[in-house]
Amino acid sequence: MNTSIDLNCDLGESFGAWRMGADAAVMPWITSANIACGFHAGDPGTMRRTVALAARAGVAIGAHVSLPDLVGFGRREMQISADEAHALTLYQVGALAGFARAAGSRLGHMKPHGALYTMAARDAALAGAIAAAVRDFDPALVLVGLAGSELPRAGRAAGLRVAHEAFADRAYAADGHLVSRQEPGAVIEDVETAVAQAVAIATRGEVAVRGGGMRALCADTLCVHGDRPDAAEFARRLREALQEAGVGVRPMVVAAGAIAAPRWSAAGPGAGA
Amino acid sequence: MNTSIDLNCDLGESFGAWRMGADAAVMPWITSANIACGFHAGDPGTMRRTVALAARAGVAIGAHVSLPDLVGFGRREMQISADEAHALTLYQVGALAGFARAAGSRLGHMKPHGALYTMAARDAALAGAIAAAVRDFDPALVLVGLAGSELPRAGRAAGLRVAHEAFADRAYAADGHLVSRQEPGAVIEDVETAVAQAVAIATRGEVAVRGGGMRALCADTLCVHGDRPDAAEFARRLREALQEAGVGVRPMVVAAGAIAAPRWSAAGPGAGA
Amino acid sequence: MNTSIDLNCDLGESFGAWRMGADAAVMPWITSANIACGFHAGDPGTMRRTVALAARAGVAIGAHVSLPDLVGFGRREMQISADEAHALTLYQVGALAGFARAAGSRLGHMKPHGALYTMAARDAALAGAIAAAVRDFDPALVLVGLAGSELPRAGRAAGLRVAHEAFADRAYAADGHLVSRQEPGAVIEDVETAVAQAVAIATRGEVAVRGGGMRALCADTLCVHGDRPDAAEFARRLREALQEAGVGVRPMVVAAGAIAAPRWSAAGPGAGA
Amino acid sequence: MNTSIDLNCDLGESFGAWRMGADAAVMPWITSANIACGFHAGDPGTMRRTVALAARAGVAIGAHVSLPDLVGFGRREMQISADEAHALTLYQVGALAGFARAAGSRLGHMKPHGALYTMAARDAALAGAIAAAVRDFDPALVLVGLAGSELPRAGRAAGLRVAHEAFADRAYAADGHLVSRQEPGAVIEDVETAVAQAVAIATRGEVAVRGGGMRALCADTLCVHGDRPDAAEFARRLREALQEAGVGVRPMVVAAGAIAAPRWSAAGPGAGA
Repeated sequence: MNTSIDLNCDLGESFGAWRMGADAAVMPWITSANIACGFHAGDPGTMRRTVALAARAGVAIGAHVSLPDLVGFGRREMQISADEAHALTLYQVGALAGFARAAGSRLGHMKPHGALYTMAARDAALAGAIAAAVRDFDPALVLVGLAGSELPRAGRAAGLRVAHEAFADRAYAADGHLVSRQEPGAVIEDVETAVAQAVAIATRGEVAVRGGGMRALCADTLCVHGDRPDAAEFARRLREALQEAGVGVRPMVVAAGAIAAPRWSAAGPGAGA
Repeated sequence: MNTSIDLNCDLGESFGAWRMGADAAVMPWITSANIACGFHAGDPGTMRRTVALAARAGVAIGAHVSLPDLVGFGRREMQISADEAHALTLYQVGALAGFARAAGSRLGHMKPHGALYTMAARDAALAGAIAAAVRDFDPALVLVGLAGSELPRAGRAAGLRVAHEAFADRAYAADGHLVSRQEPGAVIEDVETAVAQAVAIATRGEVAVRGGGMRALCADTLCVHGDRPDAAEFARRLREALQEAGVGVRPMVVAAGAIAAPRWSAAGPGAGA
Repeated sequence: MNTSIDLNCDLGESFGAWRMGADAAVMPWITSANIACGFHAGDPGTMRRTVALAARAGVAIGAHVSLPDLVGFGRREMQISADEAHALTLYQVGALAGFARAAGSRLGHMKPHGALYTMAARDAALAGAIAAAVRDFDPALVLVGLAGSELPRAGRAAGLRVAHEAFADRAYAADGHLVSRQEPGAVIEDVETAVAQAVAIATRGEVAVRGGGMRALCADTLCVHGDRPDAAEFARRLREALQEAGVGVRPMVVAAGAIAAPRWSAAGPGAGA
Repeated sequence: MNTSIDLNCDLGESFGAWRMGADAAVMPWITSANIACGFHAGDPGTMRRTVALAARAGVAIGAHVSLPDLVGFGRREMQISADEAHALTLYQVGALAGFARAAGSRLGHMKPHGALYTMAARDAALAGAIAAAVRDFDPALVLVGLAGSELPRAGRAAGLRVAHEAFADRAYAADGHLVSRQEPGAVIEDVETAVAQAVAIATRGEVAVRGGGMRALCADTLCVHGDRPDAAEFARRLREALQEAGVGVRPMVVAAGAIAAPRWSAAGPGAGA
């Protein structure tokens, strides 16, 4: 169904003396980078370095906004108010946009990280606050969220372009949600199985679900997990397989926001998921 | 000598549940606000609230950039590299600029806080890195630093407009430096004495120094300490006295960067200090 | 019913340059201090100063353990695992015990703060992990929790002495829970009403609940909110009223752990709540 | 000269999701572990895990106390007061001692980390404050510092047992100081050269210095850098070489503080360095 899709990866997740991820190795194969903004990972030096890496590679730069939880890597849910979500999104988006601007580039998208991603997928009020923060900062930004969830819905309501995200290497439940990481088999370790899932999503708009059967899943972008030990190789295989299947791999954000056919701004995508 | 001068104040220094300063009370009397960016004070909610307060009051919005030291309120010197100074300046300037933008306003200036201010006044390499970060983010920003010190010098070298800062209520040493807060009488408690010092700086370009005598001191902006118990009253008296002496009280940054006569971009100011 | 009761207060809630609470003014009227350990408030210097203040006043020293959330003052719930709760309790209890030891005193009790208090009151697994941490550190410590809740239950199961806590100035719901702070009237502002509630709890073992009627409530300790503007005066009135009603005001922890009649180690207290 | 020496290693330097060091692999070869306390590395979970690892291996447990600087890994000097040094030492020592106690073990020593180590080696006031904190917490602790520097001197003055530390794999300058890490060759990469330096220190009480010649260097403990890629192998070689040279490898702290021949409490050690 898709003639093109975006490949995004969470990057810049080092912190101070600690290294995480293989940012430079993954960069050639992806089209969008979600860069940590200091709340779950990423210090100012790491952010600057990662933004420069993405800018040089021609990879679109996005802010990967998190709950304030370094020790928990932003993966622990926290009862923040919609008002707090708005403020912490603005803070992190602004900080990352500063590095993009200083690198002669610009911020193109925003994607919540970890627990904030999950919370924003199911909580309409939180999703609305996050979308409002993105729009208040720059209505030209693309908001990335779980395909078919509250976040892209809130983004559209706020007048933003949104991107529905799907996962090549995560198992889907019958109701279209991701199988929790607490359950066995939640992460698809086998590269070829994951690549096949990606191709099915991109070309047929459907995904195999737990318990058997397929389910409609429209996606604008596929997530490449940068913390896989084989992240770079996985990203390369994914890109090649998509291209072999006739799907163009292109960024969500083209050049200075000039997206020719912003299919994700239309009513359709993700509705089925 | 000055036909006009700016009155700036450090604001937004609350943090989470803790309150500091009388931001709303001071706002009517000042022309520029230096707003904490989360490293020594100021959380995202406080930053948003303070930016909104300044925007409503027509007070110019600046980033008050600090070393990462919440417990020490950014007042403890830290051996950071020029590279680290560049990155942490960009981070904080970007974060605050995001709030300004979301409030329908814009960032106008940047002033380092506490120990970073002192270090940048005497260390040319550090000053250069900070000035480069400001220019890399937005060459239209005004860089504020201790009058006659390394920071405005570095700012001019980087092609920035700079503002030389003087203090109404701090004692000056014979060499033109501020008397250290560790010494008795470093802070001028008496309002009328401090106001007289401000008027002398603004109208005659000179300041009384320890040990007797006057010294040339050219300043574009006067700092009002927001942590004085009488900050609002002090700011009001300062403003009235300056106006009575024929000195206009006007922001460093006029409207959207359109400064009619940017005297601080010329070679002169602060050279004497 | 009680012949004696403890008056506890949350103290040491300043942080760095920010001041909170009237610790010195409250100290003469209370018998136990719950001192912040750096996770929601309290830096090392504040902890040392507050411990010294309590030691000099003969007030029992306790650790006020929190979720890691300075910006939210530990009041935002966070999905931590039982394992994480155990580790962060040990960390904070150890840190505060170090200051007590250095002051020639000793740690006597532990009480969770804010969201951790609420979570531990209703979540048996979390309560068990917290109780285990306290016991692993020192089985002679008293564990303080919401009267009749999961935390004192877990404490007894772990072999600890526990103290059931009630509130003079918080409204109770018909089911015995505290009325949420989000609801109007949750905090009893009027001093005499609050004092009367305290006396009813201490002398008759009952409390008025929303909607009318009384409910049994056995408590070993009453919380004095240190963030009331009238905290010291309130504590004094509370103490005087209890003594006038024939209730002795005595610490949970007497001297070096030698509690004469540890009624809270028995099966009874809080069971009715 | 030594009949025995201690081998210490900095451990527990992971933080949250980030891993550092090969703690389990190094543990069998060392006799003392300096465990990060959360200020430069080490979160509560990591501290608990590392303490348990050391306790099981029979390795002496020490607190590795740092300036508050996660992003800088405690390696950036910071102008803290003696008073602040006292408080932050107590905090971290207490926290780590809590984990040791919960593991059925006990804290045996304390060693400052990074910039605090360097500052305490040359600044007598700071060294005195740190030594006082250790003594205030537990006068039976051993204080570890750079051989011949201000810190062991302050420790002895405070009545503590001290351990003079030397380095197998760091180059020494002619004046006995370590060659700065900024200079080439500061770290001795070659294992056999480093092992030979360790044996010379332990058996002959001397070390080769930059520019040629030997210098007296009395040491009670040798540091094994845990961040060497070959840390475990290096520790094994060091231990074997020392034993082959007739030097016993034994902890500074034997059992419950019962050190048979506490040579480091005498006037002599380190005086020559």
